Amino acid sequence: MGNVDESWKSIEGGVAAPKGFYAVGVQAGIKYKDKYDVALVFSQVQAQAAGVYTRNLVKAHPLYLTQRHLHDGLAQAIVINSGNANACVGESGDQVALAMAEVVAMYTAIPVEDVLVASTGVIGVEMPIERVLNGIRTASAELLGDMVKGIRGQKDTTDDGAHRAALAIMTTDTTVKEHAYEFPCSQGGVITIGGMAKGSGMIHPNMGTMLGFLTTDASIPSAELQRILRETVDESFNMVTVDGDTSTNDMVLFLANGASGMTLSGEDLLNFEKMVKMICTQLAQDIARDGEGASKFMEVMVSGAKTKDDARKIARSICGSSLVKTALFGEDANWGRIFTAAGYAGAEFDPQKVDIFLGDLVVAQAGRGVAFSEEKAKEILQFKDVHINLNLHLGEECATAWGCDLTHEYVTINGSYRT
Amino acid sequence: MGNVDESWKSIEGGVAAPKGFYAVGVQAGIKYKDKYDVALVFSQVQAQAAGVYTRNLVKAHPLYLTQRHLHDGLAQAIVINSGNANACVGESGDQVALAMAEVVAMYTAIPVEDVLVASTGVIGVEMPIERVLNGIRTASAELLGDMVKGIRGQKDTTDDGAHRAALAIMTTDTTVKEHAYEFPCSQGGVITIGGMAKGSGMIHPNMGTMLGFLTTDASIPSAELQRILRETVDESFNMVTVDGDTSTNDMVLFLANGASGMTLSGEDLLNFEKMVKMICTQLAQDIARDGEGASKFMEVMVSGAKTKDDARKIARSICGSSLVKTALFGEDANWGRIFTAAGYAGAEFDPQKVDIFLGDLVVAQAGRGVAFSEEKAKEILQFKDVHINLNLHLGEECATAWGCDLTHEYVTINGSYRT
Repeated sequence: MGNVDESWKSIEGGVAAPKGFYAVGVQAGIKYKDKYDVALVFSQVQAQAAGVYTRNLVKAHPLYLTQRHLHDGLAQAIVINSGNANACVGESGDQVALAMAEVVAMYTAIPVEDVLVASTGVIGVEMPIERVLNGIRTASAELLGDMVKGIRGQKDTTDDGAHRAALAIMTTDTTVKEHAYEFPCSQGGVITIGGMAKGSGMIHPNMGTMLGFLTTDASIPSAELQRILRETVDESFNMVTVDGDTSTNDMVLFLANGASGMTLSGEDLLNFEKMVKMICTQLAQDIARDGEGASKFMEVMVSGAKTKDDARKIARSICGSSLVKTALFGEDANWGRIFTAAGYAGAEFDPQKVDIFLGDLVVAQAGRGVAFSEEKAKEILQFKDVHINLNLHLGEECATAWGCDLTHEYVTINGSYRT
Repeated sequence: MGNVDESWKSIEGGVAAPKGFYAVGVQAGIKYKDKYDVALVFSQVQAQAAGVYTRNLVKAHPLYLTQRHLHDGLAQAIVINSGNANACVGESGDQVALAMAEVVAMYTAIPVEDVLVASTGVIGVEMPIERVLNGIRTASAELLGDMVKGIRGQKDTTDDGAHRAALAIMTTDTTVKEHAYEFPCSQGGVITIGGMAKGSGMIHPNMGTMLGFLTTDASIPSAELQRILRETVDESFNMVTVDGDTSTNDMVLFLANGASGMTLSGEDLLNFEKMVKMICTQLAQDIARDGEGASKFMEVMVSGAKTKDDARKIARSICGSSLVKTALFGEDANWGRIFTAAGYAGAEFDPQKVDIFLGDLVVAQAGRGVAFSEEKAKEILQFKDVHINLNLHLGEECATAWGCDLTHEYVTINGSYRT
């Protein structure tokens, strides 16, 4: 994550932390009672907007709508529901996504094209339309109330609206994933960035829906925002999601409303990019750490690669290997599985040059096992966070991926998800 | 598997069923006591030989030796051990593989270049050299005794030597995988084909070692044998092993010693190819069925694809999906996961045309869910064998893949494999 400036400050407020942003979460009863399941994120003014989407050929209905509404690089609201993916249900799915956007637009008096929609949950089941629209009405009304307070200067960033929004996008997640930071601008003011995410089923990272939402009060054109988002997602969210193996609903959206009055350039822009990357990395790690049934978190760093792409492929291949994951669960220093997963990653390397480390313990050198203390290995593997490092000794490129172990609990959770 | 001729006959004897082949299995104590762990397959005369190997960049030591010894398309013996993969241990691994071949060559008085070697087991641990070589000496001695009986016309194909060989190549396998068939040749005689295989960890099919060994007394040049083996493996063993995701030790070898006196051509050659495919398909299904911790077997058939490659990619992607596997374990008709796995397979199709069937029950049509009887779905999913069919309605190509469910038992087995 590079050098984090000491003047950067972690703050409360999640996606509502940046000036002019509001967020709420409500309980609409889409799938479960007593669970927040509709979130609304709103900017007081039209914002520059960027988005990245699943590469799965099978795409959920809201994804098409959001892509269309983002075409002009402008948006003002994001409405999200959990409990139903609104995917693979035919034309009614498109109608539901549109209706969700229309309710927000009507209540908040903005063009429907400025409303983005995201969903997560079970695929192929019709959305309980009345419940979700009622939830959106409630959320919109609450948000308008908050906004009136905000305009009166009574906006309370310690309010739990953003927190409830972060709760509302969760499915099998067990932890809320939200972060907000601010940094001082060279022009004298402060720029704030907020973010929230959800990720489930990440123990087999290639299929659980991953959603991420970022907000900032910096002023930045949508094309620039899109570039930063794309680059950042590749090194953060996409390093817990195997490339091309994304779900039908994955998306990450970023709104920049310029309410700080600060236009980004020079060092400020660099700081902004670094901070976006830091927040996305934290959210990505949160997702890996909260993998379904996970008892351990793993960070795999591959260095000495000829190309960045090779490093990424190998790091992700190791993180995604069921046999590495179960060995991690069993606290077994089975480096042969790590090496094997590297070998089928489709990346270029010379097996005879590879060093493998568990934490700071070398377990293989120049492609072959070395005598190592099983006791020390056991000690390292007993930690909740396990670091695996590979040095390919071929070049200068490196990459990091995050994952978790594969446990009995994962099988239990996923053996009965739909029913 | 096409039209199986009624004149084809399933027989006893496994890889030793074809004329002039012998096989034994012994207990060498490589990793466990009281387990067969060294197998020797031997042809009375030098045989035409073919092989296909892992595409993993990290390759086990015996693989290099076997490739070298097979370079001339000729071989006479195959020695296999389980309990140690002889992989990633440096130069000593090459020396061990060579020593294994040398002991066979010395005892059976054949050139060392005609001995092929395969290993399966834990990676990165030195082979207990004395134990494996002693085992090979015992196996060679026993085999010579059998051969003497054979030359005297006392060869007993119901002898359990081949069965013990099939036991000796197993690791976490719970069932022996061997088949033998004969068919009448148009020239008046009979041609016999035998096969055995091992496959473990196949629940995540891309990493467990898969070994297959085939024998026949047909007379066929090695180049032709290689073509048939390559084509067959692609549609059998490789359909339980995700492409490019093979282990460090995978290989399939085929010896044809011509002892039947029958040279293959015309219809006989076609029958031969069909029978090889049938045996390999049965062995592949055996492997899927015996996946680590598996409680269910799944067959995924994709039809209506534009290209064979598309059909194969989708079928394998579904079989390899952890979420499909856990849904199968939970007997949950979660067709959204099946569709999602198709979507990220990297194949071309139109999501809006896809029909999905569980057994004969349609669960999605034209890319969207249809109302189906949950009761009927439950009934289908309660069977030990579950059939999933996708019709892409794009073309004429189809492919079938095999897999199994992902269970608690899988996690237990693989959480403590090495230790």
